[in-house]
Amino acid sequence: MNRINYPLIDFDEAWRCISTLISPLPPILQPLTDLLGHVLAEEVIAPEDIPSYPTAAMDGYAIIAADSAPYRHIIAEQTAGRSQPVRVEIGTAVRIMTGAPLPLGADAVIRVEESEEKDSMVRFFSAVSAGENIRPVGQDLAAGVVVLPLGEVLGPAEIGLLASIGCTNVRVYPRPRVAVMATGSELVPPEEIPIHGKIRDSNSYILLAAVAAAGGRPIHLGIIPDSISAQRAAILDGISCADMVLVSGGVSMGTHDFVKPLLNELGDLHFGQVAIKPGKPFTFATVNNVPVFGLPGFPVSSFVVVENFIRPALRVMAGHRRLWRPTCTARLRHTIQHAPDRTEFQRAVVIEQDHIYWAETTGIQVSSRLQSLVGANALLRIPAGVADLSAGAEVTALLIDQPEVI
Amino acid sequence: MNRINYPLIDFDEAWRCISTLISPLPPILQPLTDLLGHVLAEEVIAPEDIPSYPTAAMDGYAIIAADSAPYRHIIAEQTAGRSQPVRVEIGTAVRIMTGAPLPLGADAVIRVEESEEKDSMVRFFSAVSAGENIRPVGQDLAAGVVVLPLGEVLGPAEIGLLASIGCTNVRVYPRPRVAVMATGSELVPPEEIPIHGKIRDSNSYILLAAVAAAGGRPIHLGIIPDSISAQRAAILDGISCADMVLVSGGVSMGTHDFVKPLLNELGDLHFGQVAIKPGKPFTFATVNNVPVFGLPGFPVSSFVVVENFIRPALRVMAGHRRLWRPTCTARLRHTIQHAPDRTEFQRAVVIEQDHIYWAETTGIQVSSRLQSLVGANALLRIPAGVADLSAGAEVTALLIDQPEVI
Repeated sequence: MNRINYPLIDFDEAWRCISTLISPLPPILQPLTDLLGHVLAEEVIAPEDIPSYPTAAMDGYAIIAADSAPYRHIIAEQTAGRSQPVRVEIGTAVRIMTGAPLPLGADAVIRVEESEEKDSMVRFFSAVSAGENIRPVGQDLAAGVVVLPLGEVLGPAEIGLLASIGCTNVRVYPRPRVAVMATGSELVPPEEIPIHGKIRDSNSYILLAAVAAAGGRPIHLGIIPDSISAQRAAILDGISCADMVLVSGGVSMGTHDFVKPLLNELGDLHFGQVAIKPGKPFTFATVNNVPVFGLPGFPVSSFVVVENFIRPALRVMAGHRRLWRPTCTARLRHTIQHAPDRTEFQRAVVIEQDHIYWAETTGIQVSSRLQSLVGANALLRIPAGVADLSAGAEVTALLIDQPEVI
Repeated sequence: MNRINYPLIDFDEAWRCISTLISPLPPILQPLTDLLGHVLAEEVIAPEDIPSYPTAAMDGYAIIAADSAPYRHIIAEQTAGRSQPVRVEIGTAVRIMTGAPLPLGADAVIRVEESEEKDSMVRFFSAVSAGENIRPVGQDLAAGVVVLPLGEVLGPAEIGLLASIGCTNVRVYPRPRVAVMATGSELVPPEEIPIHGKIRDSNSYILLAAVAAAGGRPIHLGIIPDSISAQRAAILDGISCADMVLVSGGVSMGTHDFVKPLLNELGDLHFGQVAIKPGKPFTFATVNNVPVFGLPGFPVSSFVVVENFIRPALRVMAGHRRLWRPTCTARLRHTIQHAPDRTEFQRAVVIEQDHIYWAETTGIQVSSRLQSLVGANALLRIPAGVADLSAGAEVTALLIDQPEVI
């Protein structure tokens, strides 16, 4: 296999290319107990009014508001769980609990705190108007109304709403299955002590966790040695069991970097170099319509590519409309040396103080140094074309976690 | 059982009471593949230098920088996975791949892009200085250094770092197990069609999802009818299998509201009323040192209590130091009518426009109306003591999701 010089494309062109070739996965029916974080693939309409009958909004007594009797005879008790066909008349009241159906004849509920009960008789300290402390039919939800629009992200409240209207199986976009492999004969699993020349695989674990954190379902394909046939088999294995494949390593210019030529052979290689730092060898192909991403072997490069491309791509496939992390404009606490030929992403801690965001570097930014990511809550984006930046300069910060407030 | 008037305490007193009675759970050893979101319960020290030998930072040729020979003889190839005991001398070079150990004698790597190779000879278009394109010993991590401090939240980067130093079992705080039950004879499971007087249980599903979203492990105990013995058995069941118990409903002033007297009988009831709206009947007890929370039966009240008390309490138990949602100061797009006797939480959508946050109500704020939570990304906190607010007034918004940017 020959070294090919892949054209170097810029950040926006790379994302445009990816976004035109991926789309939301075919919807599935999912049960109520496994909906959290899923995106709705249908519009949900209220099948009935809620409540479907008038109910008490307070614990107290169901009465006729216009009744002026000083004492009223308690003729029944109505709880939410147990109701009976009684009718409230002038001079009578029904003891009623929150949520219980309002008895016939009654038009208001007077709160228990406003009452004194003795020997089946009740006296009230105040009056109420008709309709007071009553939840009328359809107050919470009217039949036929759109309860949840297509594209809604399902959180606890939305899931509760679906339960309340009896929607126990819902059409949602599935969580994408993502196969993860790390290539390289130098890699050993983390539980092994590496002999001279070997190192532990850390990228797989970053990618597996990043996929899970982005809402995907990671599939671990393990370490694949620097052998064309082994890597070919692993990529084919990946596209057969997953909706997306992540291949870590093997995308540099070395003689043992087989991933790009292999992807070219197996499918369509769309790009093989992007003008970002770190992450230049980032590669994108489709094999049997399955997106396959080649990620640089250095863990920080890998992380930067995941945040900027893989996470948004996963979110597209999971049906999300909001793809991007929130950003803020932050002032630098330090200088940044920047080669203007590429868009650079530096790891930083963003701190909010008196409504101003300050960015502090996490130290040496070399792309093998995972520790530059520890505690980082932001990636500072320094666009191509910009030269070195001095302290105090403003940059865009991609917030990968919430800013510290001091 | 008698109605007891529990003293009404304010928001801060309620949280103080909870926070003095809960603490992080005893740490457990957890494998690398199941660390995401866990909090570290130990300090992790680097056991060795990384890299432990000098390696190539680029694909290229390992050379002696001071060598001025125009052509050099290629004596070997060094890949990351396969290295051999060769020595670079004046006039020679070793073909080397990113991550491969630097051969003896060599003091720099010259990039492949700066070279032309022919018949085992290589010519360079530029020069390098000693040390260039080399990752020295300990560059990424020096032995003995604190890699991750106690209390660090483990995300993809931290997990990768642990893998790289061979930490495959790590002491972390466990995810709290939370037992969830909904009380009320009026409740039927969501898959049933409720007959007159019955409603579907939605609270359980809100709570199960909210617990999972907050990093807990929900245990579903189902619907418990309004029977003292059934509720007693369910609470005892809950404290035997979980680290926290959530009881929905049964905390009002009605004759069938058994939860408070039961908690008083089974353990210590710390408070039974909080001056918040919605959520006033919110109850906290400990039974055999297990925190048990009584939540109002209306779903929105339940949600407000979960956001303000249950989620932070769960985070304490999971070892987190940052307990609270981010907040912002938002300007009202609408007026708010507010009774100043309680701290009120209104559901809203917060939109960021030109660095100003605007809050828009989600409609009727009645506490049975779950739809007031759909699409809400914020709870507006209107403190006790404050009267009605006009449009344009500033309020504190608790951000339960990220603000929309327009």
